[in-house]
Amino acid sequence: MKKRNIKLIIEFDGTQYHGWQLQENAVTLQEVITNAIKELTGEECNLTGSGRTDAGVHACGMAANFYTESLIPPERFAFALNSLLPDDISIRSSEEVPHEFHSRFCAIGKKYRYLIHNSRIKSALLNNRAYNVPICTLDIEKMRAAAEHFQGTHDFKAFMAARSSLENTVRTINSVTIERSGELITLEITGNGFLYNMVRIITGTLIDVGSGKIMPDKIPGIIAGLDRNMAGKTVPAHGLYLVEVYY
Amino acid sequence: MKKRNIKLIIEFDGTQYHGWQLQENAVTLQEVITNAIKELTGEECNLTGSGRTDAGVHACGMAANFYTESLIPPERFAFALNSLLPDDISIRSSEEVPHEFHSRFCAIGKKYRYLIHNSRIKSALLNNRAYNVPICTLDIEKMRAAAEHFQGTHDFKAFMAARSSLENTVRTINSVTIERSGELITLEITGNGFLYNMVRIITGTLIDVGSGKIMPDKIPGIIAGLDRNMAGKTVPAHGLYLVEVYY
Repeated sequence: MKKRNIKLIIEFDGTQYHGWQLQENAVTLQEVITNAIKELTGEECNLTGSGRTDAGVHACGMAANFYTESLIPPERFAFALNSLLPDDISIRSSEEVPHEFHSRFCAIGKKYRYLIHNSRIKSALLNNRAYNVPICTLDIEKMRAAAEHFQGTHDFKAFMAARSSLENTVRTINSVTIERSGELITLEITGNGFLYNMVRIITGTLIDVGSGKIMPDKIPGIIAGLDRNMAGKTVPAHGLYLVEVYY
Repeated sequence: MKKRNIKLIIEFDGTQYHGWQLQENAVTLQEVITNAIKELTGEECNLTGSGRTDAGVHACGMAANFYTESLIPPERFAFALNSLLPDDISIRSSEEVPHEFHSRFCAIGKKYRYLIHNSRIKSALLNNRAYNVPICTLDIEKMRAAAEHFQGTHDFKAFMAARSSLENTVRTINSVTIERSGELITLEITGNGFLYNMVRIITGTLIDVGSGKIMPDKIPGIIAGLDRNMAGKTVPAHGLYLVEVYY
């Protein structure tokens, strides 16, 4: 019997998980969702995600796929799995996709969101959901001016975690938008792919711009320098959301 | 030495607490904040809240006050207490108020918010933060038409938890607003005071209007009937937020 290929769109609050990828001695999203699929179908299951996420990172629209012989109608997997999953994970949709569809290799782009709570006083309701920046009121206009320099195709080696190694560090960023609503600053970044910690380092650099530590026109030089030490710090995982994976 | 009266504005995620009011054998907000004040000042402390909140209810702007001989500058209490409090409670501001100020008796009004997640599929990120209504797409225009009937001064006995007893059940509602943003419906209600469960029963009734179960023009009759059984159900606590207390 030919197995069907099922694609899931997954929302999760990553606070309680040690990231996406299966690990020994730690609860991960891949493990919990794989177990729910096994419980539902009775089959062993290989759940392929669109990429790894770090501990504490959230998602509105993580993508994943798995093969099954189950006769459950594809769109019913979302409802059936939600009844088995903990409340901090929800399958927003499920559908059958062509047999060759692969969540990671077929992805042509991603959108991430980073939430900054820009206030001298921490917020209980944004605890684990946004990164508190208390130092000063960030200058959004300067951050936007700096953000423009990230758009386009560049070698983003300076914005990759120093401990990672990768041959090709060239990526294309399609857009970076920054909006303020009261104390909350929402940064959204869309690109064809992201290096390890890239969104969090770009955000840390833009915070340095917003606080006046880095001038917007220094960004092209920081990118061209290819030196991790010239860019800003890696902001915490808990402000980051994987919003959508494009195919 | 004359004690100073300190007013706190408190934000909390109520998920982990058995409401505001001190209880034996259950962790409450009043207890945790009182303990933090004791730890900070070394004094016994009587923390007066603007009212009780049920288990699971959240707040953006709960008000409370306490008397102290501490010489800590009033506005510093917020920072000092936040360093002692768990991350799901934050003191947004602290200030000295006149000796006779009483958080409960001096309150002249309150604003509450209720979040409805109107989607067939649950949301992991709104877990414990909004009430999921999956049955159908609620008709916001009908809900708004119904909401207008609640405004003004009425006997709201039909919208009080049946098990509570109170002489005077007349209250004034100043405004009820309902907005939709994608799957999220935000209801805000401002009034001079609220009966036990009143916001949650009004919201339950408005959901019945939005789903077509109750016609908007039936609301005046339901109010006039003074019968709890004619109103809608009490929606869950976890969608409710105390936004502001007016003095």
